[in-house]
Amino acid sequence: MKHYTSIDDITDLYKAVSEALVLKSNPRQFSDLGKGKRLVMLFFNPSLRTRLSTEVAAANLGMEVTVLNVTDSWSLEFDDGSTMNLNTSEHVKEAARVISLYADVIGVRAFPGLKDKQEDEEDKIIRSFMKHATVPVISLEGATAHPLQAFADAITLVENTKRSRSKVVLTWAPHPKALPQAVPSSFIRAVKRMEFDLRIAHPPGLELGHDLTDGIPVFNDQGKALEDADFVYVKNWSPSDPYGSVVKGFDDWIMTADKLGKAQFMHCLPVRRNVVVEDAVLDGTQSLVIDQSENRIYSAQYVLKEMLEKR
Amino acid sequence: MKHYTSIDDITDLYKAVSEALVLKSNPRQFSDLGKGKRLVMLFFNPSLRTRLSTEVAAANLGMEVTVLNVTDSWSLEFDDGSTMNLNTSEHVKEAARVISLYADVIGVRAFPGLKDKQEDEEDKIIRSFMKHATVPVISLEGATAHPLQAFADAITLVENTKRSRSKVVLTWAPHPKALPQAVPSSFIRAVKRMEFDLRIAHPPGLELGHDLTDGIPVFNDQGKALEDADFVYVKNWSPSDPYGSVVKGFDDWIMTADKLGKAQFMHCLPVRRNVVVEDAVLDGTQSLVIDQSENRIYSAQYVLKEMLEKR
Amino acid sequence: MKHYTSIDDITDLYKAVSEALVLKSNPRQFSDLGKGKRLVMLFFNPSLRTRLSTEVAAANLGMEVTVLNVTDSWSLEFDDGSTMNLNTSEHVKEAARVISLYADVIGVRAFPGLKDKQEDEEDKIIRSFMKHATVPVISLEGATAHPLQAFADAITLVENTKRSRSKVVLTWAPHPKALPQAVPSSFIRAVKRMEFDLRIAHPPGLELGHDLTDGIPVFNDQGKALEDADFVYVKNWSPSDPYGSVVKGFDDWIMTADKLGKAQFMHCLPVRRNVVVEDAVLDGTQSLVIDQSENRIYSAQYVLKEMLEKR
Repeated sequence: MKHYTSIDDITDLYKAVSEALVLKSNPRQFSDLGKGKRLVMLFFNPSLRTRLSTEVAAANLGMEVTVLNVTDSWSLEFDDGSTMNLNTSEHVKEAARVISLYADVIGVRAFPGLKDKQEDEEDKIIRSFMKHATVPVISLEGATAHPLQAFADAITLVENTKRSRSKVVLTWAPHPKALPQAVPSSFIRAVKRMEFDLRIAHPPGLELGHDLTDGIPVFNDQGKALEDADFVYVKNWSPSDPYGSVVKGFDDWIMTADKLGKAQFMHCLPVRRNVVVEDAVLDGTQSLVIDQSENRIYSAQYVLKEMLEKR
Repeated sequence: MKHYTSIDDITDLYKAVSEALVLKSNPRQFSDLGKGKRLVMLFFNPSLRTRLSTEVAAANLGMEVTVLNVTDSWSLEFDDGSTMNLNTSEHVKEAARVISLYADVIGVRAFPGLKDKQEDEEDKIIRSFMKHATVPVISLEGATAHPLQAFADAITLVENTKRSRSKVVLTWAPHPKALPQAVPSSFIRAVKRMEFDLRIAHPPGLELGHDLTDGIPVFNDQGKALEDADFVYVKNWSPSDPYGSVVKGFDDWIMTADKLGKAQFMHCLPVRRNVVVEDAVLDGTQSLVIDQSENRIYSAQYVLKEMLEKR
Repeated sequence: MKHYTSIDDITDLYKAVSEALVLKSNPRQFSDLGKGKRLVMLFFNPSLRTRLSTEVAAANLGMEVTVLNVTDSWSLEFDDGSTMNLNTSEHVKEAARVISLYADVIGVRAFPGLKDKQEDEEDKIIRSFMKHATVPVISLEGATAHPLQAFADAITLVENTKRSRSKVVLTWAPHPKALPQAVPSSFIRAVKRMEFDLRIAHPPGLELGHDLTDGIPVFNDQGKALEDADFVYVKNWSPSDPYGSVVKGFDDWIMTADKLGKAQFMHCLPVRRNVVVEDAVLDGTQSLVIDQSENRIYSAQYVLKEMLEKR
């Protein structure tokens, strides 16, 4: 792969899962591959899991890591031809090319602003780095996708599947803040390409886009969607219209042990306890959230290994 | 040791000092012990000495290190059963378990708020990590204790002792801000267990707690306490009542060369010159402050080595 | 060299350039030299290129690196004999000596305030570290000099020189903010010592100091200065009087492809496009800005190697 900014950049998903599981079985087996190579991670937004898991993944491959927390003091310009006499001090053309001198792989995290749908869909920070960097770029969660999470979720699904054509339900949950659609979108993209029976549940008005959900059963009745589920992936997202708003009045969409039944519970974390999901589920034996976080290491390590081997 | 959050977690203090001095004599002699192991340090408050000395200690053992400066953007929830619909975005249950996936040892710095004595005494950040992490936790200074400093102080005392049953005086000093009791408390706990004659001096109203000082002579007359002293440890702390207040009117408790006499001077740093201690003492040959800072490396290295060997 | 805080700390500039180019030809050839040695970099101001290139340089030599972004929470005192009962919490005497315990080389970045010329010229942060540290100090750009940039520029000039006594023009450019004189000053100091024909161009009132420019032709007519140029180094700086002011009314001093002619273009970056220089120059084949950034690695690596070998 040239860059990794979408789960679709992985050509053969099941093969990739197998290779990630080989890495998990012996994480340091390729510790010479990245010797003298450097991953530079740019965080335009805060990170805990992504930063740490990707750092561990790089170290497992013998790479060196630099983390740059990008603050207001470094205001990048993204527009071509602009006269930079205002607040931006460096154009991404220079920034991406210069960082490429010092890095063998560049990771970028840049959340959507959730103010302007069209602007967010352009995902301009990550796309600009893809365009101007001369080394591979990894999305550490962009405006529209979180592909390292989605691949970790795919690994977790494969590890925990107990029967063929398991039923996977992605269900919306309440949240006090407006959140991006990156995680549910990437999760859907991953599961669509695997041997699962995927269903989506959300209140009316929270549709995720026709192209994405075409051919997948969508329910406004959460209970109906959850029937006979094997895996229940719970996640809040904010609506496309009004874009970036907080949807209220659906507190009963919280996931409970009763609703979960015998299914296994998934969430990307961080999670708001007793708002998104009740304690009994998170603290119970059907929760896979810690497995998902652990698999973030091998998700990133697979991607980094691919990039190191292609060079 | 399982965790290291109190000097009392070291069972045999003199034996530990000896082992730390062996490390000091050849810091990289165990540089294979930590290969492929990672120390993650979480700083809820700023740090210079603790961060650098612990990072050097970990590197001496071959460990990898990640430093996370925790800011307002990561608001942890500590209460059980809470409905997280306000400002906290992640429960420490998840945070500590997830970081444990990426770390072999977790270090945590979390100062007291100095507003609510009972809350501070619960030391909830460090205790929550001890409870929920699945790897060893090291206190990088908590609300009530600074055990890495205390062990470095113990090493420094042993290195510089010139006669049996040396007299060690811990004396309060003025300071323009309210400071925690963590350093003096941990110092007392350490010295109590060693072959020293410990005395404490402070103005009235600055008592450090009966359990801690029981059996130790306490003086409100600084001059009397300092008679025949071999070591003088100077440190400000704020009173238990009114909790977290700044005590004024005792500027003459500053340490001077005259008061120090032939004793050796100790302070954990950072120190306010000519408020806590006059220049002549800090710049004189009887000052041990640089030795104390150097021993912070071997204090941390001893603790990390213990943890790596127990795993 | 003991410290590296001026390009003049390099005794033989051409020999140093040759050695830097040897490093560039095989960056990891001395990767054992820095084993177990640590570079601590203190940034009192933000950094992208300097941080990353110096980190890569140190890693190429096998060194470990710690980056400390110094914030308001660590207020250093620099004055001798002061009574520290206000906002400063630690004296640089202790800070520099303590960091020297944990570092083999200390890098410091500290920009001028551009409020008080005399204070800036004292460059007190870097000079204080030079005075009190017990290990070598590298300027990562101080109030008056940017010697790592100047040495990278010298390397770039040597690499791209096509005829003897090439003409190098340093020309001022417009900028919406007041910038320091560190980069142009250090560039002049470097080029003065090399076999180039150096000229300086700036609008009236932007003189750079007699001692520095003595013997160098200075033009207020940019066009005349640029005649027959081989290298054109473009850089804004603010005037000495009124100190730290923004000079307006010279927007036509922007560098254009037309003005550049056949010369090669240099700039230290970051650069404001279409204010300092037009897109056509930066995106054209005569631009050396990426080369300059790449040579920042070997500039720092040469300096670090010198320091490691002297110890």
